[in-house]
Amino acid sequence: MSLKQILLGRTLPTSAHAEERLTIPAALAVLSSDALSSVAYATEEILLVLIAAGSGALSLSLPIALVIVVLLAIVILSYRQTIRAYPQGGGSYIVARENLGLLPGLVAGGSLMIDYILTVTVSVTAGTAALTSALPNLQPYGVDLCLLFIVLLTVANLRGVRESGNLFMIPTYAFVVGIFALIVMGMFQQATGQIQSIPQPIAAAQPIGLFFILRAFSAGCTALTGVEAISDGVLAFKPPEWKNARKTLLFLGVILSGMFLGITYLTQIYDVVPEEGQTAVSLLGREILGNDSPLYYFLQVATLLILLLAANTSFADFPRLCYFLARDGFLPRQFAMLGDRLVYSNGILLLSLCAALLVVVFRGSTNAVIPLYAVGVFTSFTLSQAGMVRHWFKERTSGWKPSAVMNGVGAAATLIVLLVIISTKFLLGAWLVIVAIPIVVMLFLAIRQHYRYVAKRLSIEGYAPRSYIARPKTDTVTHPAVVVVGQLNRGTIEALDYARSIADEVVAVHVDIGTTDRQKLHERWDSFESDILLVILDSPYRSLIQPIIEFVSDFEYDHPDVLSTIIIPTFVTRTWWEGLLHNQTAFFLKRALRAKRSRVVTSFRYYL
Amino acid sequence: MSLKQILLGRTLPTSAHAEERLTIPAALAVLSSDALSSVAYATEEILLVLIAAGSGALSLSLPIALVIVVLLAIVILSYRQTIRAYPQGGGSYIVARENLGLLPGLVAGGSLMIDYILTVTVSVTAGTAALTSALPNLQPYGVDLCLLFIVLLTVANLRGVRESGNLFMIPTYAFVVGIFALIVMGMFQQATGQIQSIPQPIAAAQPIGLFFILRAFSAGCTALTGVEAISDGVLAFKPPEWKNARKTLLFLGVILSGMFLGITYLTQIYDVVPEEGQTAVSLLGREILGNDSPLYYFLQVATLLILLLAANTSFADFPRLCYFLARDGFLPRQFAMLGDRLVYSNGILLLSLCAALLVVVFRGSTNAVIPLYAVGVFTSFTLSQAGMVRHWFKERTSGWKPSAVMNGVGAAATLIVLLVIISTKFLLGAWLVIVAIPIVVMLFLAIRQHYRYVAKRLSIEGYAPRSYIARPKTDTVTHPAVVVVGQLNRGTIEALDYARSIADEVVAVHVDIGTTDRQKLHERWDSFESDILLVILDSPYRSLIQPIIEFVSDFEYDHPDVLSTIIIPTFVTRTWWEGLLHNQTAFFLKRALRAKRSRVVTSFRYYL
Repeated sequence: MSLKQILLGRTLPTSAHAEERLTIPAALAVLSSDALSSVAYATEEILLVLIAAGSGALSLSLPIALVIVVLLAIVILSYRQTIRAYPQGGGSYIVARENLGLLPGLVAGGSLMIDYILTVTVSVTAGTAALTSALPNLQPYGVDLCLLFIVLLTVANLRGVRESGNLFMIPTYAFVVGIFALIVMGMFQQATGQIQSIPQPIAAAQPIGLFFILRAFSAGCTALTGVEAISDGVLAFKPPEWKNARKTLLFLGVILSGMFLGITYLTQIYDVVPEEGQTAVSLLGREILGNDSPLYYFLQVATLLILLLAANTSFADFPRLCYFLARDGFLPRQFAMLGDRLVYSNGILLLSLCAALLVVVFRGSTNAVIPLYAVGVFTSFTLSQAGMVRHWFKERTSGWKPSAVMNGVGAAATLIVLLVIISTKFLLGAWLVIVAIPIVVMLFLAIRQHYRYVAKRLSIEGYAPRSYIARPKTDTVTHPAVVVVGQLNRGTIEALDYARSIADEVVAVHVDIGTTDRQKLHERWDSFESDILLVILDSPYRSLIQPIIEFVSDFEYDHPDVLSTIIIPTFVTRTWWEGLLHNQTAFFLKRALRAKRSRVVTSFRYYL
Repeated sequence: MSLKQILLGRTLPTSAHAEERLTIPAALAVLSSDALSSVAYATEEILLVLIAAGSGALSLSLPIALVIVVLLAIVILSYRQTIRAYPQGGGSYIVARENLGLLPGLVAGGSLMIDYILTVTVSVTAGTAALTSALPNLQPYGVDLCLLFIVLLTVANLRGVRESGNLFMIPTYAFVVGIFALIVMGMFQQATGQIQSIPQPIAAAQPIGLFFILRAFSAGCTALTGVEAISDGVLAFKPPEWKNARKTLLFLGVILSGMFLGITYLTQIYDVVPEEGQTAVSLLGREILGNDSPLYYFLQVATLLILLLAANTSFADFPRLCYFLARDGFLPRQFAMLGDRLVYSNGILLLSLCAALLVVVFRGSTNAVIPLYAVGVFTSFTLSQAGMVRHWFKERTSGWKPSAVMNGVGAAATLIVLLVIISTKFLLGAWLVIVAIPIVVMLFLAIRQHYRYVAKRLSIEGYAPRSYIARPKTDTVTHPAVVVVGQLNRGTIEALDYARSIADEVVAVHVDIGTTDRQKLHERWDSFESDILLVILDSPYRSLIQPIIEFVSDFEYDHPDVLSTIIIPTFVTRTWWEGLLHNQTAFFLKRALRAKRSRVVTSFRYYL
């Protein structure tokens, strides 16, 4: 309790809940870190595919990057329509559910959940790779560093990170400045003829074919991850919210395209070949900025920080999505509860656990997780755009036609890319996500079915007002009680007194496992409790529980239509370790009675 | 439950409890395995000390072994007196407690507990060493093999190994036959001049001094461990019990001395030098019986089996000692309960856990554990003999004087050896035991104090018969009840019905964490439960528990001198995983009420 307070701070009242509104530069920093940070790994992922066809194939990366930028433009134009239509924030789950129906909505929700988990895994592993590229001594501790970062993010988010734009702007703009500085200096060195790198030819392991190029394209599509964040968070903008959000989305597109194309171009002119233990950006940095220059370290630290910030956005989005799903009955209710610090703590914990598990399973390798990543992203892209098309056809607000066309093109483009990704990456890991999404959706449906069943069973439809119910005033027993007696001591005597006060028939029951002095017990009983029947049960197998369970079952059977109260005297020790010195019979008895459908079980406590 | 039954077999009734009586050969096999098996490591322990002073010092082992045999004779003559005086079985704990008082008794009990744990550790590691000496490929798995053997012993003993003499005789007599065959063949080879070993001189690392010789002597004293077992188990003999036990003890002494001296003599004439991965007995076997001869493997397997049998005796003795201590209130009562298979399961589990822990901590090395071993053994030896001296002076039965002298000599000799062991092995690990014994004794005393405190608090001394207590028949409230209400559903409605039937004042309490539609709740309440007051509590910090705890505390304060019943409606899901979909509020509420000293808490269950 105390440790929790030290780590997380004191509990906050509900009234402290407040939303902060962001200016455009702040919003760009906070909401775009996920998208912008993908520059740190997207080019490298393309190169890692191409290198299999030899160093000659690496020159394909620039055309592929250009196609991806076109795709980015389509997606951004499409999401601008979503922002206009959903000024309250239009996440894929909400858009797909409202417009396409339950199942597509749940598919979008499930994809997004997986997507957020993978964002944390990919960002944290890529950030760690940026760090270990700069400090190769840390390379053996890659997985540990990843887990450490996840723990730090978890604690920070459980405390409740205010998305304070000012502080969060630093890593984003530092990264943007660093990357553009790299691009400018690199091009300047090229223009002045300072490049001395001699390409080392690498032999081709496989031929270049369409499938091969599509696979490289799929790998590069990770550059688009996180683009949807702005349309989800329209409400975080200062008024006029939707207009500011649209502007910000445009800025994002321009900056992201510039950085992505620039880095890809540099890898070509500097003949960067992916290398174990060095990211492509780090190799460029060492080449252009100098091996141990402060600028190089600045770039690597900025890369680490923006990637952690990108992971952090999932810590805001995942619990919020879980809240929506829980509110609608598709996830356990606990995800809809605000924790001590006004955050959805359970969602945060689930996210960190899943991300940490993936880090461990994939041994902290960004490259190994990437094939899983894009499937969820493009599934939710497609469903969201398709939902928007449907939206425009339903609403037909002024100027709906061009918007519908935009979203239609977006949906078609992202669907095609999704199919490409699935077909090229299936065996590399994408199958995991394709298997996981339907399982998650079935889980959603099973959970809702359970809640519906419970609600039906608990409904009081058609019940009569209780205060008018006539109470029987006859000689029949109306509330019988069984008192479990171990020894005759103060605790049991007071429990029997209590039983007398609430019940009109009291029976005491004692189990003899072969150690009871029956004569002495009967004598003491007769002198203290002669008005209550004492039943002594034999227990040839030395169980204290089983004979009582059977007795209670028989007793309840003999008293139909009324509720029998089972009274279990338990004494409470001062400390937990003192409890170890006593049989936990009361606990096991209660559990066994629960399974036997005894409805009223009373703990009568005696405090030592 | 099912797995437990497969492993352990079905539950046995108490009436199946029976004791088997053993003939002298069977008793020798069952009760002496611990003592006889120490031949497998005692000589080696002496050599391991002496080798530090160079190979020349190894010739000291025979004189040291002779002194140990004299000591053995004294101890055996002394224990013969104990057997006569305690024909019901005189373990150190009982003898020391009866004759020397509480504290010496507890010291003996604590030493014995530690001793039994170390017997398991030493025997299992030494047995594993015998196995890996024969099959060197298994050497990397030493610790795993030790743990496997402990698990097998645990399961066998939880099932309840009948100490069936016939089966258990095989390893003991196989070992005795094997060792004597080794000795005879070795001496025959010496007599016929077949020994060709050329001693490799080893340089002395330290000089030979008195302290050094005493340390080697201490190491060899492990040969005496287990000698007391026969005097503990007199009742296991066929009548006349004590006479048969004395005879058996004498046989044990003769056989043990012969084997120990023989092995020590052989190590000298064969110039055996301790070697990593090979026990001394294995080296002798390879030399005398032939490297891969069936006889050699027979000897090693017999060694393994008798050592496992020796460990097994601790599995009988440790739980029995725990039973005695628990019966007297020095250990938790759970140790006095017979498990499903009529064995003291908790004692067995405690023993295996401790022994396994030591195996892991000492990485399965017999040599590392040995310094800890002898301290407990000789402490209980000394206390037991000293207790016997006191016994004879108190009882003064016929012929008490020679017995008192015998026991006096035994007590003096073992005390001196104990002091030698402590002083020579203190830094090597004996300090651990010297620290542990007082801690264990203090634990014993703290446990007894707790039980006494509880008994005093629960005593009904001076209570009046309850049936004559006048019950108040006035208008004052005699049994008030608080019903915790989440939603108004079937479960809560029935709980309120129940509350009406047992209480004469009912208050319902609901916590609003900011999500309750108060108007709707009040409307529904008025139409169903208008006769019961509904209190709605604010919860600015969103806790469901805290406001109820405070309300209940106030309610109980407002109703002094009577017991308030706190009724918590809980609904029971069909499976445990369905329970995950619901807040465990009822559970946490009960726990919090327990801490707040609410005496009567009723679970009102609604089964879905």
